[in-house]
Amino acid sequence: MIKTHGYAAQSATTAPAPFDFEHRDPRPKDVVLDIQFCGICHSDIHQARGEWGNSMFPMVPGHEIVGVVTAVGGEVTKFKVGDTAAVGCMVDSCRECASCKAGEEQYCDKRATVFTYNSKDKDGNLTFGGYANHIVVDEAYTLKVPASLDPAAAAPLLCAGITTYSPLKHWKAGPGKKIGIVGLGGLGHMGLKFSHAFGAQTVMFTTSANKIEDAKKLGADEVILTKEAGWHEAHLGTFDFILDCVSAPHDVNPYLNLLKRDGVMCSVGVPETPISINTWSVISRRSYTGSAIGGIAETQEMLDFCAEHGIVSDIEMTSFKELETAWDRVVKADVKYRFVLDLKTL
Amino acid sequence: MIKTHGYAAQSATTAPAPFDFEHRDPRPKDVVLDIQFCGICHSDIHQARGEWGNSMFPMVPGHEIVGVVTAVGGEVTKFKVGDTAAVGCMVDSCRECASCKAGEEQYCDKRATVFTYNSKDKDGNLTFGGYANHIVVDEAYTLKVPASLDPAAAAPLLCAGITTYSPLKHWKAGPGKKIGIVGLGGLGHMGLKFSHAFGAQTVMFTTSANKIEDAKKLGADEVILTKEAGWHEAHLGTFDFILDCVSAPHDVNPYLNLLKRDGVMCSVGVPETPISINTWSVISRRSYTGSAIGGIAETQEMLDFCAEHGIVSDIEMTSFKELETAWDRVVKADVKYRFVLDLKTL
Repeated sequence: MIKTHGYAAQSATTAPAPFDFEHRDPRPKDVVLDIQFCGICHSDIHQARGEWGNSMFPMVPGHEIVGVVTAVGGEVTKFKVGDTAAVGCMVDSCRECASCKAGEEQYCDKRATVFTYNSKDKDGNLTFGGYANHIVVDEAYTLKVPASLDPAAAAPLLCAGITTYSPLKHWKAGPGKKIGIVGLGGLGHMGLKFSHAFGAQTVMFTTSANKIEDAKKLGADEVILTKEAGWHEAHLGTFDFILDCVSAPHDVNPYLNLLKRDGVMCSVGVPETPISINTWSVISRRSYTGSAIGGIAETQEMLDFCAEHGIVSDIEMTSFKELETAWDRVVKADVKYRFVLDLKTL
Repeated sequence: MIKTHGYAAQSATTAPAPFDFEHRDPRPKDVVLDIQFCGICHSDIHQARGEWGNSMFPMVPGHEIVGVVTAVGGEVTKFKVGDTAAVGCMVDSCRECASCKAGEEQYCDKRATVFTYNSKDKDGNLTFGGYANHIVVDEAYTLKVPASLDPAAAAPLLCAGITTYSPLKHWKAGPGKKIGIVGLGGLGHMGLKFSHAFGAQTVMFTTSANKIEDAKKLGADEVILTKEAGWHEAHLGTFDFILDCVSAPHDVNPYLNLLKRDGVMCSVGVPETPISINTWSVISRRSYTGSAIGGIAETQEMLDFCAEHGIVSDIEMTSFKELETAWDRVVKADVKYRFVLDLKTL
């Protein structure tokens, strides 16, 4: 077994604290990583604090993982010792259903997706994530990190990156399309970068006038302030696709009314309370939908796209000593735009 | 001017009563109809009773209209005197925008769709519908009724028919697809007939065990009772498309969870209160959307399809004397499955 040291929440009401545990010895197809960097995702906090009702403890959060391969099983072909590799939000799935075979393992039809932490693997063991110095993952669920990407700034690509890349690709953001991004945070800033890189006309929606300049630097062609009632009336029926990156409760109806016929609004934040839709807002085949991360092959495609286009996350490095402060700042949306834990601080 | 006699609501709180008014003399492209039959749509009642907040009075309802051509303008090419013709929910639109040019005049991008009643035409005149003995409509918004269709039973095709035909076609109901129809009423019974005729595996959702036999006769391969909590659990992730024909408030989340990845639930009822969606219900790219009637060309296609497949609405004939009773029974969903006014009773 591989002795591992990390930080775990022991309950929904206790802060993460040092925790020793073991990962399995590598099986023939496993890769062992020494973790270098792990991004902090709002979902780490939601789950560690029991806000999604699915929490299992002890919980070692973290699913934006970049590290160095230190050992491989005998049948591993994609990785060798010394490679920089990454692990995202999932580490296994049924591998047999239509969704898994379509490369959409996150939507496994058998609901057998094994998430990187707060999940049970096929042996019934609790999974432990990237707030720790090692992880052991089947190579089929491990990603290659292109050499040109800064490994710390690449870490958030594994969740914030793929979560925005996948729906923008699925709904064909590109030249001739007008795309809206709602909310300038960890997800939203990646959405801006990708939409811009895909060649779409990219519009940022924000309540904060002081985010206008940043949004433009990140790739927005236009910024629409959403603070005043009636802000949406000048923009009705003009958008092909709107990516909603806001996880706080908010009114989606004004955005739905900005869509063209057959336009789509996709939520990648998950508000804790249900959203309310006026049926008139969707009556002209405008859709409200959601999307979760992306498949393994698409995640690799995204990392390669990032290398090709010089895209990484804008990050602020933090340490385990500052973890609680970092979490509190994430909740307040007070970070530009993603915290990354340096595992050297463990 | 063409002297016309019909029934109008004079306010949201008074029942429809005899009313005399005038239609314009036919312009070069106009068709004049002697109305024979007019279906009763729940939206007639919603609007006459001011429940959608858009009511203009006096209101002559009715947009499921079949009649005989009694005069045509000099430039009319599609119709001649004596033809059986039909008018549905709209009588004009901008004709220039992308939606109009795509044959989706109901979604006119300039929001210039002129509805058959309770709407203003391009001259600013209030439009009057099919609860009357005449109507005058541009031939571009008039439909041909195939000779093999019973004209009374064809009338509801103009709204209930096209409203269900269009989304089922748009989302490709057909062989290999599993399609759900929610609610066995005026819309739902047409949805069953079309889904079955398209060759899809067709499933009826209903709260009423006593509708099982009827649903099967109308085209359902299976009927799922939705009365008991947890009814949906055996059917998760198995549907390609669900057409929601219920206009009363109801929980859409169980249905959303029945959809496969990338499945679509489309509402064609318009509940008066907003619907509530748990974001988790749509997270695997399942969509909630709506659809309104269909374009003029598609409405003609639907009528021709009905002639080819022997499809009409199941109707109960009624009279102007019984109009209030009929309306009350529509509100109670006590009709199999559409009332049709016989204009001879006027």
